[in-house]
Amino acid sequence: MGEAADPRDRYVVGVDYGTLSGRALVVRVSDGAEVGTAVHPYRHAVMDTELAADGRALPPDWALQDPDDYRDVLRHAVPAAVAAAGIDPAQVVGIATDFTACTVLPTLADGTPLCELAELRTRPHAYVKLWKHHAAQSHADRINATAAQRGEPWLARYGGKISSEWQFAKGLQLLEEDPEVYHRADRWIEAADWIVWQLCGAETRNVCTAGYKGIRQDGQYPSADYLAALNPDFTGFTAKIDGPLLELGERAGSLTAQAATWTGLPEGIAVAVGNVDAHVTAAAAQAIEPGRLVAIMGTSTCHVVNGEKLAEVPGMCGVVEGGISAGAWGYEAGQSGVGDIFGWFVEHAAPAGYDSHEILSELAAAQPVGAHGLVALDWWNGNRSLLVNHELSGLIVGLTLATRPHEIYRALLESTAYGTRMIMEAFAEAGVPVTELVIAGGLAANSLLMQIYADVTDRPLSLIGSAQGPALGSAIHAAVAAGDYPDVATASAAMGRVERAVFRPDPERARAYDALYTEYRALHDHFGRGGDDMMLRLRAIRNAARGEQA
Amino acid sequence: MGEAADPRDRYVVGVDYGTLSGRALVVRVSDGAEVGTAVHPYRHAVMDTELAADGRALPPDWALQDPDDYRDVLRHAVPAAVAAAGIDPAQVVGIATDFTACTVLPTLADGTPLCELAELRTRPHAYVKLWKHHAAQSHADRINATAAQRGEPWLARYGGKISSEWQFAKGLQLLEEDPEVYHRADRWIEAADWIVWQLCGAETRNVCTAGYKGIRQDGQYPSADYLAALNPDFTGFTAKIDGPLLELGERAGSLTAQAATWTGLPEGIAVAVGNVDAHVTAAAAQAIEPGRLVAIMGTSTCHVVNGEKLAEVPGMCGVVEGGISAGAWGYEAGQSGVGDIFGWFVEHAAPAGYDSHEILSELAAAQPVGAHGLVALDWWNGNRSLLVNHELSGLIVGLTLATRPHEIYRALLESTAYGTRMIMEAFAEAGVPVTELVIAGGLAANSLLMQIYADVTDRPLSLIGSAQGPALGSAIHAAVAAGDYPDVATASAAMGRVERAVFRPDPERARAYDALYTEYRALHDHFGRGGDDMMLRLRAIRNAARGEQA
Repeated sequence: MGEAADPRDRYVVGVDYGTLSGRALVVRVSDGAEVGTAVHPYRHAVMDTELAADGRALPPDWALQDPDDYRDVLRHAVPAAVAAAGIDPAQVVGIATDFTACTVLPTLADGTPLCELAELRTRPHAYVKLWKHHAAQSHADRINATAAQRGEPWLARYGGKISSEWQFAKGLQLLEEDPEVYHRADRWIEAADWIVWQLCGAETRNVCTAGYKGIRQDGQYPSADYLAALNPDFTGFTAKIDGPLLELGERAGSLTAQAATWTGLPEGIAVAVGNVDAHVTAAAAQAIEPGRLVAIMGTSTCHVVNGEKLAEVPGMCGVVEGGISAGAWGYEAGQSGVGDIFGWFVEHAAPAGYDSHEILSELAAAQPVGAHGLVALDWWNGNRSLLVNHELSGLIVGLTLATRPHEIYRALLESTAYGTRMIMEAFAEAGVPVTELVIAGGLAANSLLMQIYADVTDRPLSLIGSAQGPALGSAIHAAVAAGDYPDVATASAAMGRVERAVFRPDPERARAYDALYTEYRALHDHFGRGGDDMMLRLRAIRNAARGEQA
Repeated sequence: MGEAADPRDRYVVGVDYGTLSGRALVVRVSDGAEVGTAVHPYRHAVMDTELAADGRALPPDWALQDPDDYRDVLRHAVPAAVAAAGIDPAQVVGIATDFTACTVLPTLADGTPLCELAELRTRPHAYVKLWKHHAAQSHADRINATAAQRGEPWLARYGGKISSEWQFAKGLQLLEEDPEVYHRADRWIEAADWIVWQLCGAETRNVCTAGYKGIRQDGQYPSADYLAALNPDFTGFTAKIDGPLLELGERAGSLTAQAATWTGLPEGIAVAVGNVDAHVTAAAAQAIEPGRLVAIMGTSTCHVVNGEKLAEVPGMCGVVEGGISAGAWGYEAGQSGVGDIFGWFVEHAAPAGYDSHEILSELAAAQPVGAHGLVALDWWNGNRSLLVNHELSGLIVGLTLATRPHEIYRALLESTAYGTRMIMEAFAEAGVPVTELVIAGGLAANSLLMQIYADVTDRPLSLIGSAQGPALGSAIHAAVAAGDYPDVATASAAMGRVERAVFRPDPERARAYDALYTEYRALHDHFGRGGDDMMLRLRAIRNAARGEQA
């Protein structure tokens, strides 16, 4: 950044909407060079205890956002990024966005968020429900039970479970808890698509969120019969989510005059269809080719990989045709706790003098594999991989009076690597071969963790070559929407960045980990596959005990 | 203490030999009043890294002591206790001792410790092997395998396992590692009996250590045939441990002139036969009556209980006729890690601000039963209760991102209570009913822990009424040896102290704990009884990995 700009160069802007802020990145179309970036935090951040408008308390597990905070990212981060790049805004030929998902809001037919209507300003259900709004679990339970009972064909495409985070569960909660707002909502739309509407003035829907979050499979949404079985008033729900559907990388429209004013970019440039932060990272990591599994590792891990054919993988989050890129089946899987677990350990289980990732990693790295005698199950935040059960919990076995903090820390790092290996093997067993593991996300910076992943999976680890994977991925899609590349694969090859085989497995360590992984699998199956449902009983006991106290 | 002494009162002295020091306690015979006490630390403490005589390094798992340190307790602590009591030493009518066990040493025929011979001063095997000398495991393994193979009838009296801590394992190690010292040893004697020999000038053996540590059952030691099968040179071993055998509380002899000089007590007063710290505590806690189980809770827990008949209890440490008091079968069981586990947590797993028992207990006490959602297996130091396997390890299940340090701490407290309940139920199932649980030892001071034990076992908890249980127990035996009481039961009733039902179970909490105890049992059986021998495999992996590193 800050290099001398060539006035002949063409640029695109990628905007990555995260949980707490949005980041804009200016990228050169010819080679993907990242020339300027800026971040703008959301003014209201996440509303999870009270509504900003009137301070009213929100129930447990709620998580709302204010959609105007997203516009503020266009108003502030985009011009700041262009300024930082030192380029002429006229050189920008396209813009694309990616978003957390499923993050969803109710709007009028013209896209106006219901929370922006004066009379609904203090109605929590009129706001954006952020991905981590978890108050629709009972609705998700009914969605799953009814689908299983009726043998709905789409259920297997989601590993047998629809998440409480997704469009249908949140929509059913809206209907049943605030029917007035539900009926006022002409549209129920992913923020990923809403922000594109703000940019180009036209409603579109992207195949990625429609498939993964909106249960759109084989060209159809769940049937009216099925919806009626959930709640007769829910029958018309799909009319609120259906809309002009575009493939990823397609041009949704042209930048409106108003959006040009917000961003300082030229009116009329290409605006790409919406996308999701994890999925768009595959393009940034040159991992569009089938078999290249991208693990985006942060507080949790999201795995995305293209496959050549349709398969049903137990416990996957979903498989969607064109869900990562057109022409392939996009598979998504996830581990619901990764960096969160390491953070928990440092904050709540490491004694003074050991309470930093650096110290723990340094001490842990000095030990040979297995010297701690420990195996853990990485279910501190449940399991959303093969088992899809949020009520599972963490376990450590092998503790002795001689066990020291860095040994437990290492066992936790390893447990998440075993979890990733389980997912890779599940894909392979289902006929979706994984040929390469590419790491993106903040945890890629922990060398010990990366070496453990290489040794546990016994394959070389590639690392994404950008610190701003999602924003770069969006920029790649902007270049395709602008017509500078014929498709996402070609743009990814030119503009994406990956370093191959940065960490290589050591044969001896890999063999040692095979033995520990066998123990992990035994624990996994005993506690997760019906050997003993103790964790579910402990959760029920816990919940009852806490309820009694309240 | 310090009250005006009545010159007509009769007193006894109890001396408790612990791991690091000896304590003398002066007790009034009529009512057990504790009128003076003093402690003297062992000059050489525990020699576990090097031999004091020449600084030579000791191998791992060794633990030696210097027997003259025991005499120093007689020279210093006894006169200091009498002085503190403010009584005339002429009022003392008897002395008795209790010791850690199995703590054992080789001597000449006259009782001279071999380590006091100039030519053997630098031979580690010539010293006292303290109870926690754990370097004879391979010898114990052979002792057990050979006994099982030959169907030795005594094996079941020890729950199926002879410990590496006991007389035979340590003796076999001596023979095979230093045959010269073995052959010089005319006697192989418990420190419990050796110190009595020092006091009265005559060798005696007490039925307690002879039974629990010396494999003496039904009047016999293991056969010469069996010993020859272990090692032909071991055939004559029992000749070194056999000696004049006395019941607990019997008079071993009279205080010698020399011992009178050391202690300042009158020559010729009664000296009681030797005893063991845990077993002697039953008398101090008025728990001689069958069914009153005394749990001496410290770093580990030792359980002693009298039964009316002989039974074989799985995993008990031993059953010995008269082993606690004459006329009953004395049962011993144990939990190999209790306070040690809580200490481990505070030192190695509690973050700053939580790293004290007081803070953790206070926070943990505020939670309802089960609100943490956790169950642990209390095997940080193996399991020497029902499973008798030191290679088992600790486990925690139910961890989440919301788990806090005091919740884990409470789960650890609870896990040891579940372990105690397992032992009580095993006794009951084997036909040795437990009617009362009496707590002695340092952990009795933790009210939260005590309430948990009451709730988990669903019975009122009695507490010993003395802070010096073993020394008081010894004093009681001294009074019997002096003829002031006809037997230990009568002396215990007059001089012992217990507060009954200090902690009462709450019916609702007891019910809640039943559910958690069911989960503990499921874990116990899965990991400890062949469901999955994972812990043993993890230990093997750990040991191999550590070996490779060395």
